[in-house]
Amino acid sequence: MIEEKDERRDVSFDEDQLIRWLIDENIDEFRKDFLSMHAYDQAKFYVKVGPDIRKIMYHFLSPEEMAEIYEAIELDDEEIEYFIKEMDPNYAAKMLSYMYTDDVVDVLTELDEDDRDSFLELMDEEMAEEITELMGYEKYTAGSLMTTEYVSIQENSTVRSAMNVLRREAPNAETIYYVFVVDENHRLTGVISLRDLIVAEEDTLIRDIMNERVVYAKVTDDQEKIAQIFKDYNFLAFPVVDEDLVLQGIITVDDIIDVMDEEASDDYSKLAGISDIDDIDAGPFKAAKQRLPWLVMLLFLGMITASLMGQFEATLEKVALLALFIPLISGTSGNSGTQALAVVVRGIATGEIDEKSKLKMIFREMGTGLITGIACGLIVVLVVFLWKHSLMIGMLVGTAICCSIFVATIAGSFIPLLIHKIGIDPAVASGPFITTLNDITSILIYLGLATMLLGQL
Amino acid sequence: MIEEKDERRDVSFDEDQLIRWLIDENIDEFRKDFLSMHAYDQAKFYVKVGPDIRKIMYHFLSPEEMAEIYEAIELDDEEIEYFIKEMDPNYAAKMLSYMYTDDVVDVLTELDEDDRDSFLELMDEEMAEEITELMGYEKYTAGSLMTTEYVSIQENSTVRSAMNVLRREAPNAETIYYVFVVDENHRLTGVISLRDLIVAEEDTLIRDIMNERVVYAKVTDDQEKIAQIFKDYNFLAFPVVDEDLVLQGIITVDDIIDVMDEEASDDYSKLAGISDIDDIDAGPFKAAKQRLPWLVMLLFLGMITASLMGQFEATLEKVALLALFIPLISGTSGNSGTQALAVVVRGIATGEIDEKSKLKMIFREMGTGLITGIACGLIVVLVVFLWKHSLMIGMLVGTAICCSIFVATIAGSFIPLLIHKIGIDPAVASGPFITTLNDITSILIYLGLATMLLGQL
Repeated sequence: MIEEKDERRDVSFDEDQLIRWLIDENIDEFRKDFLSMHAYDQAKFYVKVGPDIRKIMYHFLSPEEMAEIYEAIELDDEEIEYFIKEMDPNYAAKMLSYMYTDDVVDVLTELDEDDRDSFLELMDEEMAEEITELMGYEKYTAGSLMTTEYVSIQENSTVRSAMNVLRREAPNAETIYYVFVVDENHRLTGVISLRDLIVAEEDTLIRDIMNERVVYAKVTDDQEKIAQIFKDYNFLAFPVVDEDLVLQGIITVDDIIDVMDEEASDDYSKLAGISDIDDIDAGPFKAAKQRLPWLVMLLFLGMITASLMGQFEATLEKVALLALFIPLISGTSGNSGTQALAVVVRGIATGEIDEKSKLKMIFREMGTGLITGIACGLIVVLVVFLWKHSLMIGMLVGTAICCSIFVATIAGSFIPLLIHKIGIDPAVASGPFITTLNDITSILIYLGLATMLLGQL
Repeated sequence: MIEEKDERRDVSFDEDQLIRWLIDENIDEFRKDFLSMHAYDQAKFYVKVGPDIRKIMYHFLSPEEMAEIYEAIELDDEEIEYFIKEMDPNYAAKMLSYMYTDDVVDVLTELDEDDRDSFLELMDEEMAEEITELMGYEKYTAGSLMTTEYVSIQENSTVRSAMNVLRREAPNAETIYYVFVVDENHRLTGVISLRDLIVAEEDTLIRDIMNERVVYAKVTDDQEKIAQIFKDYNFLAFPVVDEDLVLQGIITVDDIIDVMDEEASDDYSKLAGISDIDDIDAGPFKAAKQRLPWLVMLLFLGMITASLMGQFEATLEKVALLALFIPLISGTSGNSGTQALAVVVRGIATGEIDEKSKLKMIFREMGTGLITGIACGLIVVLVVFLWKHSLMIGMLVGTAICCSIFVATIAGSFIPLLIHKIGIDPAVASGPFITTLNDITSILIYLGLATMLLGQL
């Protein structure tokens, strides 16, 4: 009765059997098995088979059934366009009209403008209008994430009529676990959960039991902020209003899980210096194409380091020993800079660092840089002294490490805050970038000090 | 009617007024305002005020009301212990008995064993047993995340009786939006959503409308795997069973959001070389304490680099120019290694890289390393030739960069896969660690090549 559990829990169906039924045009057997699968597994099958098999699927499944697959699908941008173009345009338009508006928007934004317009023309006028409106919202805002399939009700309705509305809307609404309460101008005034509804007396007025302290977002709010609200308040869905508090749509928790996943990947990949981390399946050429821009940019920054060091060639010629500690110093300063950067970028992303705490943060990092700098510096003095038996070299390298860590820690916290201030995503000041900048300052400090002390070395 | 929206949406209440009411012992006004607040806002207030104010709160709020606050609270480990000890033990025990078992477990694991046992003794025997059992599951497994407050029903019940069970359990169950269907041995056989229940005919048998292809986890499954299932299938809750398929508990989406947040922070902070990134409020000493272990460890690894370079001191003495390119070469190899590492670590974490695709991944990375290596190498040959007018030096640096990138990319993908294979979290092969290892190989390649070619330089 229960599927056999497997390691990855994704082969709970006999793929080859399904393909055989499709090829043999055994529509009944295929539909019986396929439609009992979870939409996510259906989507995995759909994406995996070739275009010929997919074309049979379009004949065997109704646009409504295909819409379920598209609700569950997770595709690369290019694939979506490719798949949609496999379909008969009328079939595709019908399928889209069965999908939740937020998912339709996701699909349509991947098509070029002509295709998009022709689909909108084939769709029901009211839906086409709603979708055009949703597509007008800027990317990464609440407006672009929300769906318009919510359940709303007037304040003076009874619990009974609310339950009837829910029953009627259940097949279409994205969630029926919250009912949003509005006044005569469709302005949001409250919220009530299905949980509260099913335990309430049928004649109770919604007004008397609704929660009036409803937390909501504006259509222009950033998606990271929305994600934070979900994390804090543990909502399953969340209303979005315009400037006049008129209810425009809702955001559901499944969309937010995708956003969180995206944002986490995004910050992480920027820290590693890659533009897009998700493409595990890409070939070596595509992977190289994704990574080369950063590598080459950093290569040129590295050239600046090299040319600055050129100024100290005379010093290096006199005391070749100095070169041995260059990787140590630049590495350590890079590491401490990345640590500070990671804390600050993550703090900005989660909203824990705001205007008020910025200054406190920088002072904190100055203190941290000083402590870690002195600690590492002392260790280095000792180790170098024991190794090279020269207190002078030990003091030089230790001082350079101490100063480098101090500067790198401040830079690692200050630069992302500065970049954020001028309205750019602070994650662009990513790990390798700040590391290379810290390379330059640390080597300048080290070789500068060495040149000053050259007589004593 | 609706709260005024503010930038961070967290001051939807007059904090000072609440404190004044507490100090004036105006219990009615305090309760009226405080209890209308969302539990998350209540928790923020509770955490923010001092111990004296909190002590008044314990008198003004029932253990049941305080339990709501503790459901919503997000605390550092040390704070929880501190707060619980402020309370009268009987009050605390009562409060715990009103909380969902998974949250009780979270609180109790922060206390020392004696305190824990004394609380368990004060609690209802059945609950104490359940909690002891939950506390027995290993950290980061499905068992440690799940709660036992779910709604279950027999297959041969009707929709009407299911709805009655739901109404009865609604105040206690963590979610009532799924009803889990079990056989006479309490083995999981299906699931049905409240959405399906409210649109079904009252006399329908659950068996006839339940979903039999229920996706579930075992108590021993890792939390990352659970998070992946939530991401894929968009569930709101998810059953957990033991080896015999007997239903043990459920995991709800809000817990998974916390897990995802934790895991993302965790991978990110490891890539940056910090043990714990969340502590924005820590002072400089605490921050330094968190960061120093990594810095010092890397410092000693850096010393190895320096001592290996010491082998080439003679070469460096003869051609001091060579030193200029050391940061460039080690930096570039570090960057490409981190890129490969980030892709692989993330791929392992999300489950996209499994046993089968491992080898493919390594071959892909070899290809990527070769392409990026040759591309960067050629650029460097050209730039160094134009700058230093020496084709020999250009070729040397270019070849070293090309080989370093190739080796670093393979190491960046191979090492985490290897570490994962032997059962360790691959994120420990974090950015700075692999960077420092790559430093060593790249410098060996560069100075080794240089020494071989010394006659021509």
